Amino acid sequence: MKNLDIVLVSDRDKFTFTPSLPHVAVLDKNPKGIQAELGKILPKRDIQFIHSKAEEVDPDTQKVKLANGQVLEYDYLVFATGAKLRWEPTVEIEEGAKIYSICNLEHALETREAVHDLIKNPGPVVVGSIPGTSCFGPLYEFAFMLDYRLRKHHIRHKVDMNIVTSEPYLGYAGLGGIGPSKRYLEDITMEKTIWTYPNAKVKRVGKNYVEFALCDEDGNEKKTIRLESKLTMLMPYFEGPDVIKSAGDKVANPKGFVKTNRCMYVPDYPNIYGVGVCVAIPPVQKTPIPTGTPKTGQMIEGMAVAVAHNIYNDIKNIPEKVAPKLPAICIADFGDKGFFVLADPVIPPRNKVLYKEGRWAHWMKEIFEKYFMFKVKAIKNITPWFEELGLKIMFDIEYIEPCKECSGPTGSRC
Amino acid sequence: MKNLDIVLVSDRDKFTFTPSLPHVAVLDKNPKGIQAELGKILPKRDIQFIHSKAEEVDPDTQKVKLANGQVLEYDYLVFATGAKLRWEPTVEIEEGAKIYSICNLEHALETREAVHDLIKNPGPVVVGSIPGTSCFGPLYEFAFMLDYRLRKHHIRHKVDMNIVTSEPYLGYAGLGGIGPSKRYLEDITMEKTIWTYPNAKVKRVGKNYVEFALCDEDGNEKKTIRLESKLTMLMPYFEGPDVIKSAGDKVANPKGFVKTNRCMYVPDYPNIYGVGVCVAIPPVQKTPIPTGTPKTGQMIEGMAVAVAHNIYNDIKNIPEKVAPKLPAICIADFGDKGFFVLADPVIPPRNKVLYKEGRWAHWMKEIFEKYFMFKVKAIKNITPWFEELGLKIMFDIEYIEPCKECSGPTGSRC
Amino acid sequence: MKNLDIVLVSDRDKFTFTPSLPHVAVLDKNPKGIQAELGKILPKRDIQFIHSKAEEVDPDTQKVKLANGQVLEYDYLVFATGAKLRWEPTVEIEEGAKIYSICNLEHALETREAVHDLIKNPGPVVVGSIPGTSCFGPLYEFAFMLDYRLRKHHIRHKVDMNIVTSEPYLGYAGLGGIGPSKRYLEDITMEKTIWTYPNAKVKRVGKNYVEFALCDEDGNEKKTIRLESKLTMLMPYFEGPDVIKSAGDKVANPKGFVKTNRCMYVPDYPNIYGVGVCVAIPPVQKTPIPTGTPKTGQMIEGMAVAVAHNIYNDIKNIPEKVAPKLPAICIADFGDKGFFVLADPVIPPRNKVLYKEGRWAHWMKEIFEKYFMFKVKAIKNITPWFEELGLKIMFDIEYIEPCKECSGPTGSRC
Repeated sequence: MKNLDIVLVSDRDKFTFTPSLPHVAVLDKNPKGIQAELGKILPKRDIQFIHSKAEEVDPDTQKVKLANGQVLEYDYLVFATGAKLRWEPTVEIEEGAKIYSICNLEHALETREAVHDLIKNPGPVVVGSIPGTSCFGPLYEFAFMLDYRLRKHHIRHKVDMNIVTSEPYLGYAGLGGIGPSKRYLEDITMEKTIWTYPNAKVKRVGKNYVEFALCDEDGNEKKTIRLESKLTMLMPYFEGPDVIKSAGDKVANPKGFVKTNRCMYVPDYPNIYGVGVCVAIPPVQKTPIPTGTPKTGQMIEGMAVAVAHNIYNDIKNIPEKVAPKLPAICIADFGDKGFFVLADPVIPPRNKVLYKEGRWAHWMKEIFEKYFMFKVKAIKNITPWFEELGLKIMFDIEYIEPCKECSGPTGSRC
Repeated sequence: MKNLDIVLVSDRDKFTFTPSLPHVAVLDKNPKGIQAELGKILPKRDIQFIHSKAEEVDPDTQKVKLANGQVLEYDYLVFATGAKLRWEPTVEIEEGAKIYSICNLEHALETREAVHDLIKNPGPVVVGSIPGTSCFGPLYEFAFMLDYRLRKHHIRHKVDMNIVTSEPYLGYAGLGGIGPSKRYLEDITMEKTIWTYPNAKVKRVGKNYVEFALCDEDGNEKKTIRLESKLTMLMPYFEGPDVIKSAGDKVANPKGFVKTNRCMYVPDYPNIYGVGVCVAIPPVQKTPIPTGTPKTGQMIEGMAVAVAHNIYNDIKNIPEKVAPKLPAICIADFGDKGFFVLADPVIPPRNKVLYKEGRWAHWMKEIFEKYFMFKVKAIKNITPWFEELGLKIMFDIEYIEPCKECSGPTGSRC
Repeated sequence: MKNLDIVLVSDRDKFTFTPSLPHVAVLDKNPKGIQAELGKILPKRDIQFIHSKAEEVDPDTQKVKLANGQVLEYDYLVFATGAKLRWEPTVEIEEGAKIYSICNLEHALETREAVHDLIKNPGPVVVGSIPGTSCFGPLYEFAFMLDYRLRKHHIRHKVDMNIVTSEPYLGYAGLGGIGPSKRYLEDITMEKTIWTYPNAKVKRVGKNYVEFALCDEDGNEKKTIRLESKLTMLMPYFEGPDVIKSAGDKVANPKGFVKTNRCMYVPDYPNIYGVGVCVAIPPVQKTPIPTGTPKTGQMIEGMAVAVAHNIYNDIKNIPEKVAPKLPAICIADFGDKGFFVLADPVIPPRNKVLYKEGRWAHWMKEIFEKYFMFKVKAIKNITPWFEELGLKIMFDIEYIEPCKECSGPTGSRC
């Protein structure tokens, strides 16, 4: 499409392949292989890159103010900001105490140092999630990779490992479970002698301990437990960044997420779209301790495809809208082996679930990382025809479908 | 045996192969293939068929009064009436609300219409059992077949499916579990994203909802839940029909079931026998919410074989009595695949349990249906020698054993 | 090493291969095959055998008084006494009631008689453990072997079998579970229709019943249950024998166990060592009902190897100490099939767990028994080079490691 100006504004100058951050933190993966410079890859696609922070959006005048002073006008605006990571005020953090994380590269590199320390001076580890967490997969990846690494160093017997999670049961994953996740994680933690505390509300993190309440099925606290911890890794909960809030209540919900509908646009401003973690999706179920619905990588690709279609149609005056179908293939990598799940859609109830465990799944994730980074760097279309065809033929999954009624909540289907 | 007048009285003029009713309701199986006209099949076996309803039995004068005015005298009487299906007074049914069922052909055909409606206008489904239910298998068959059919139509993601059962745990089945039933059903419902509520006491069914209490292990209500429901299928509890009650307290227990002993006759009237669902078998265990012991098809065959032997011996003045051993092969069919279980005896503790899941089990059930209907229509002896031999050789199971002491409860062994 | 006088004092004149006692009790194994006369096997190894009971130890004068009047002086003393079996005062035993056991040969032979009675007159069975039990494996072996034997006699359906255990969950085993033990035992007891009561505090054993309280996760009694029982087999808890207590508080803990450190000697008397069940190992976790840490056969071999090394080093003035690493291969034999587990170390967290179920495991245990008895009778070194090499090559496990800091608790690693 000619005469189309696409501008990408970001306060980061590199794209990072987030799913490999646990590998960076625990298995010393080189971060260089999972990054690409936006200044190089975007111009190839005729996208202008502005390395600055978007600070304010005025949806009525259709302007975006950047930290560098620039003011951009837009016909269409897509929020794809990701989220702010928050532990407080849900968790009280003692002065001098540290919660490690693997949600962005800086955090992952700090955590890497802590893992190195742990290998030199073994001690207990707490891995977990907090009230409001919506992203649980990396919790398990981190725990199992760490278990794997400690066993490789023959020091696993010196490290008491604990999983303390706000999920009502292991493997709930914000999704009411996915395939055999509950049973599988109960079994594998038992075998690995990782002590587990589901339905736990983390309350306080100290320099060498984690304090949490075990809750009953209504969320009432039953008993407080304090575990010694030398390394504490807790998945945060997510909040929308300030730039979304700046667009006002019609755009942002109280948590600062973009209030999109099932076709990924904001009903009150149909030229504003949201993609990814910054979008509001209602929880799958009310859980005793609040949890959110995760937005996995492939779900986000589906959202992006839908948004691209809808903007194209709008420009071309095609009345049809499309909604993402949100299928996803996830590979949880545990270092030596991994777990493959296909869920269509990710959000239940589902038409299809396939899963398989094996060593090959670890390699599949490695290969996918290389393939994705290759796509990002060298191929114009991020969902090339052969990928789309492969997904359709092998697994009968597609990213989008025509939508008759856009008004449902994001993630729902008409 | 000559000079023997066998008369079968029934208010229905057709035999129906009950195990295939879920297929009729959910998978549009043609009912014709699973029925046989009693007026045709009985005379071939020198059995007189009277198409009327038995209304009153006088065990002292040995007479049966029929709805058509006839009064029959008998030397031996066998109750094989089946049961009345009851939801009230256990469950309150809102005016205009409908509980679907698959326990007889009329119900199954009504349910088929409801399934067709559901496919056109998807909405939530509740499948379950109520306090007092003794027959749980079809609950799971119905739920899994419906899940299968909805996935075939690619609309499973629009139907929230729930199992609400009076069993203390999934797969209790009135039998303290059978093989791996608990684990298997917990796993498969999780994978199919069917939300499950065991130990639940259904209290009220509305036009578009089901209300139930979750109970603790003593049966105390912990919490009331109301689920939206567009199609509600609940297994009823069973009561003996009035004709059994008419025979008085020495024959009928308070629920109207025949008070047989382990040799299947009524102690106070040794010339009255019971066979099948109308017979009283004590519950396997006291459960938090009352449940009964199921009487599966092959158990009933075993009872019938025992009754036939005992009547023969009595006529021939052979003092030996026989009791049914009650082994059974069950195939739960889920549409695409099925689950095969051999339990000997069905009522625990058991000498033997074998089980296997697979696609072949679905076909095995189909073939069994055809074989059974062929037997009913074309072979005089319903348990032919090759069947008996096959069961003995392949699975080491037999239907009956000599009994030294008839006085134990039905289903027990001496 | 010349000029070394090794004296073994025992009130029993035979070595018995304890792991085969369930086979003696349930499967009529001949006890002769699992015993060896100490008077024959010890002299071959230049060890003097004194058949008497050690009654008093004075650690300060380094003397042991025997029941036969002899007083022995020692340079090094090793306690390897095993334990006293205790049911009271934890459990109230009704007059005339009998708790069967399989912890020594006399008990196993008594239990064999009870099993024969049961086969003649079937009735309900309770198998379990009591508060304080540390050894749980034989409980499951006994139950599953009995189930196997009853099925072979085709009378399993006449015997209600119950497992009533002080473990917080089936398969806790005093070890926080081992591999898939929880899931495996939950599944297999369900399949075998053995009714299970975990977290149960046995309170009273009568002539024909067992009474116990089901506890909550804090150990509070929730409900009392009385089960009918014709044969009651309960694993006892262990106490150190009086001879250890006689050595005073610096040697014996309140339960009469030897207060060794991780290098298996008593800190206050470094020339006193402990090996086996008479040694104090702290519980792995605080459980609702108290449980102890088991000391399995191969753990004990590891302790013995460590003690031998440490005494040798001490004599030779080599300052290095060694500690046992406590890996173990366990085979639970159920009569027809068995379960193999390798755990390294046994006490969690573990570097390695391997497991496999199969018929071969039953035969593996039989072969191991023969091999072990052959070693005891014919080979001087009880851990010959080929065994050590085999364990190292096949499973990468070793019995001992150099220790920098002996002061940790027995079973811990530095």
